Amino acid sequence: MSALSRFPVPSFDELPGDIRARITAVQEKAGFVPNVFAVLARRPDEFRAFFAYHDALMEKAGGLSKGEREMIVVATSAANDCHYCVVAHGALVRIYEKNPLLADQVAVNYRKADITPRQCAMLDFALKTTQRSGEIDESDFARLREHGFSDEDAWDIAAIAAFFGMSNRLANMAAMRPNDEFYLMGRVPRPPR
Amino acid sequence: MSALSRFPVPSFDELPGDIRARITAVQEKAGFVPNVFAVLARRPDEFRAFFAYHDALMEKAGGLSKGEREMIVVATSAANDCHYCVVAHGALVRIYEKNPLLADQVAVNYRKADITPRQCAMLDFALKTTQRSGEIDESDFARLREHGFSDEDAWDIAAIAAFFGMSNRLANMAAMRPNDEFYLMGRVPRPPR
Amino acid sequence: MSALSRFPVPSFDELPGDIRARITAVQEKAGFVPNVFAVLARRPDEFRAFFAYHDALMEKAGGLSKGEREMIVVATSAANDCHYCVVAHGALVRIYEKNPLLADQVAVNYRKADITPRQCAMLDFALKTTQRSGEIDESDFARLREHGFSDEDAWDIAAIAAFFGMSNRLANMAAMRPNDEFYLMGRVPRPPR
Amino acid sequence: MSALSRFPVPSFDELPGDIRARITAVQEKAGFVPNVFAVLARRPDEFRAFFAYHDALMEKAGGLSKGEREMIVVATSAANDCHYCVVAHGALVRIYEKNPLLADQVAVNYRKADITPRQCAMLDFALKTTQRSGEIDESDFARLREHGFSDEDAWDIAAIAAFFGMSNRLANMAAMRPNDEFYLMGRVPRPPR
Amino acid sequence: MSALSRFPVPSFDELPGDIRARITAVQEKAGFVPNVFAVLARRPDEFRAFFAYHDALMEKAGGLSKGEREMIVVATSAANDCHYCVVAHGALVRIYEKNPLLADQVAVNYRKADITPRQCAMLDFALKTTQRSGEIDESDFARLREHGFSDEDAWDIAAIAAFFGMSNRLANMAAMRPNDEFYLMGRVPRPPR
Amino acid sequence: MSALSRFPVPSFDELPGDIRARITAVQEKAGFVPNVFAVLARRPDEFRAFFAYHDALMEKAGGLSKGEREMIVVATSAANDCHYCVVAHGALVRIYEKNPLLADQVAVNYRKADITPRQCAMLDFALKTTQRSGEIDESDFARLREHGFSDEDAWDIAAIAAFFGMSNRLANMAAMRPNDEFYLMGRVPRPPR
Repeated sequence: MSALSRFPVPSFDELPGDIRARITAVQEKAGFVPNVFAVLARRPDEFRAFFAYHDALMEKAGGLSKGEREMIVVATSAANDCHYCVVAHGALVRIYEKNPLLADQVAVNYRKADITPRQCAMLDFALKTTQRSGEIDESDFARLREHGFSDEDAWDIAAIAAFFGMSNRLANMAAMRPNDEFYLMGRVPRPPR
Repeated sequence: MSALSRFPVPSFDELPGDIRARITAVQEKAGFVPNVFAVLARRPDEFRAFFAYHDALMEKAGGLSKGEREMIVVATSAANDCHYCVVAHGALVRIYEKNPLLADQVAVNYRKADITPRQCAMLDFALKTTQRSGEIDESDFARLREHGFSDEDAWDIAAIAAFFGMSNRLANMAAMRPNDEFYLMGRVPRPPR
Repeated sequence: MSALSRFPVPSFDELPGDIRARITAVQEKAGFVPNVFAVLARRPDEFRAFFAYHDALMEKAGGLSKGEREMIVVATSAANDCHYCVVAHGALVRIYEKNPLLADQVAVNYRKADITPRQCAMLDFALKTTQRSGEIDESDFARLREHGFSDEDAWDIAAIAAFFGMSNRLANMAAMRPNDEFYLMGRVPRPPR
Repeated sequence: MSALSRFPVPSFDELPGDIRARITAVQEKAGFVPNVFAVLARRPDEFRAFFAYHDALMEKAGGLSKGEREMIVVATSAANDCHYCVVAHGALVRIYEKNPLLADQVAVNYRKADITPRQCAMLDFALKTTQRSGEIDESDFARLREHGFSDEDAWDIAAIAAFFGMSNRLANMAAMRPNDEFYLMGRVPRPPR
Repeated sequence: MSALSRFPVPSFDELPGDIRARITAVQEKAGFVPNVFAVLARRPDEFRAFFAYHDALMEKAGGLSKGEREMIVVATSAANDCHYCVVAHGALVRIYEKNPLLADQVAVNYRKADITPRQCAMLDFALKTTQRSGEIDESDFARLREHGFSDEDAWDIAAIAAFFGMSNRLANMAAMRPNDEFYLMGRVPRPPR
Repeated sequence: MSALSRFPVPSFDELPGDIRARITAVQEKAGFVPNVFAVLARRPDEFRAFFAYHDALMEKAGGLSKGEREMIVVATSAANDCHYCVVAHGALVRIYEKNPLLADQVAVNYRKADITPRQCAMLDFALKTTQRSGEIDESDFARLREHGFSDEDAWDIAAIAAFFGMSNRLANMAAMRPNDEFYLMGRVPRPPR
């Protein structure tokens, strides 16, 4: 068993080439390999589908900013008690929003966070998708429209909440541990070089 | 708006070739196009990732039979109040298990279904993943091992529950309607030709 | 122990005459003896009271059709995880409504079922009675009136939900098994003779 | 509308003879007419079935004392937030058990009440029937047997909890008000004559 | 271990002087020593802070009557399943409100109690504080204002619910038993001398 | 209305002397005035009782370290969705435990945190006190004893959870905002001077 997870983690050298390439790319960008890459790599087909889905939702154009998408991830993951995703995506909220306080606020109680009413409506819909999706009805879409969200935005919000709800369950099942680096990212301004 | 979903459904002809090919293949096999293909096709990248993930979990080798995987889908989807997935995958439970009663039993209360103690343990773990994944611990894996499940099987159970938990939320958000054909599939023996 | 229930089932011949007569009548009508008759017969006084109550609610005149009453039973029984009642009364929904799809829809998530807004309001009240009866107040009756239900109809809805809530608990306690015949009833059109 | 209920209460004189006889009998015994008789009398067939069921469960022989049956009623009714039944049957707990404190203890938290471990196991089963009947399994019966309860006693416990669960929902729906007399019954010793 | 609590109760003589004085005063007023004084006295600093807080909330001036404050205590304590506080403060509701029925009504279901709409709004806010305080927002204060409560009254309501929520948890942890005297207080009119 | 809270905050100069002294002392120690002091100061008697209680629980001797006491606060406050207490006491967990990661772990899911089995048992008891105190029984104390906790430690754990449960409700009601300083405290090692 590895410290990163309840499951063994494969060595980098034995991974397929496309997965090594993806891991190398993220390492160059972030400066370290987020553990989710190392843990999921043991199942290459699931790894590929997971990150293809991730990219389709998180790197597409649309009415949600990158910071807003990460807020959805943090609020959803907190509701699902997922240690990995709250810590890792909290770092991204801080970085994209250039706000060192926001991730902790959203994780504990987004209703009290320093966000706009539009963002609060976005998170209300994400949480309804997370907790009571069988009760979603036309009134939920109407409320989002009042805040300027299109129906395509509604799909994005729900799909991000649904995808990370899956990710939360995988991380909880595998006892996936967030990298220590995430905790401090975006909290302190980097000194100018 | 289409009868299949709250969202518009693209016409077959405007879809990318690989998606048309996938839809054609399933239509040839099933005799109709399950609505999930029609509804998700409006977002090709998400379509591709969704079915790649689906296939990676549902068509791989491993300790779970095809019927058992579909039982996990039905029990999870019932807990998430997902009309589409209970009806569509209920049909698959009946077909794979050659049992016209089992899907309804698993959907209402798997604890009372005609399944083995091993299968009940499998569904207990799937439901814990669905409802309280933050409380999964070593004792859950130990109980699965007592029933002959390896840790790889545990991953499969949890991953199927997690993936269809995502699917349930998407279907509920999009008000995806199951095809009428699913309701009767596997309920009546096919006459010999 | 009998396959029908956790409790032993008495032989038909040792039953009191009025109970034998009731069972004979239902057998002639349905073509088989629904297990609830066989299982409850071991306690004749409770049997008599149970079916007297059943008939008083389900065979009286009033603003609810027979199919609507059975929808209340199915939605309530699904909320209470009662295998027997969902399967047996699902058959009655299909037959009375002449709709092979409706019972499964109501059992999984009545909010997404092919029912009228009036019927949805009816089921909302039945479910509130089932799950949060202590919070029923004047506003619930007002909403029913907007949909054309009288206060007598409201009593009927709540009483049916309450009676079958009792039935669900008895069936779950006794591990009562639905007859195999129920699963297929009303799903396939009967051929003309 | 009557002060006894959200629904109108019929005058005694217009009631069928058998219902008048039952009401007269209870009035002679109790010194007043408990409101449940007055409120349910508006629907004679339901009245008859209700009290026939009540008597079949509460006045039969068996392993539960009259006081224990009423404890089941009070604990169940408190869980269902039913004002009428907690107050009316609390009086009966005090009288049958000759204990002026017990009813309030059972209503607030039976785990802390002055009852035996056997009675606590009885109430645990009643509450499981009330709140999670779909999860009842063989281990529940085994635990009852350890405390000396037969399987017939188990049926009695569950049936009383189920019947009063129905009664609680009816009383909450009808806004049934307990008679003022119940509150003080059994609290003060009656002076010797 | 003492009959009053899971924890040992110190003898009166070994208590600090100020605590003895407080206990003597309450005994002279009530005619007996409420067990909460005896049980908490084993930790003098906590005793002093507890009763200082109690007095600051319950004996201050403001828009809530003494009887209303005790209603908040009873409704909160019932929601928290606290035997001690429901029984002891139920007595105070009866005495302050000169109403022998009200405490039992509020304990079982305050929505059905003989209270004013203003008092019902007060208890709705107390219960929201007790059960979902993270969702309190401006609309809760607006609703209280519609019923004539100032924002200082809102603080009082929430602070009483919060303080007794603490008290409920301490009493439940310590298995604190209410004095038998409380059960009957305020139920019977005292005869004129 | 102040940015610190939904309620107005008094100016320092108008506060009573003892409260000014307490505030001055904490400011000298921490380098800033934590907002809880500023917000509660508007009600001097409640302020005094609150901090007397706080000190009685948090600054006494006993079997719990200062860091462990703060872990109880963070886990409890996360369960109660209290933004102020998770952020402010998270800082104290980091400082006392000299661990920059621990507070976030305990806030999201203490079961996955880097704590000892003994500390996990401590937090299980704190959370049971927070969420289901009416079900605490002898087995909970027995489990604590297995981990080396005395019954006095059990009281401490429960009393801290209960006191901060009160504090969480007050902070949520008053919309109390944590000082920005707390977010970063204990996350970065201070450079040697």
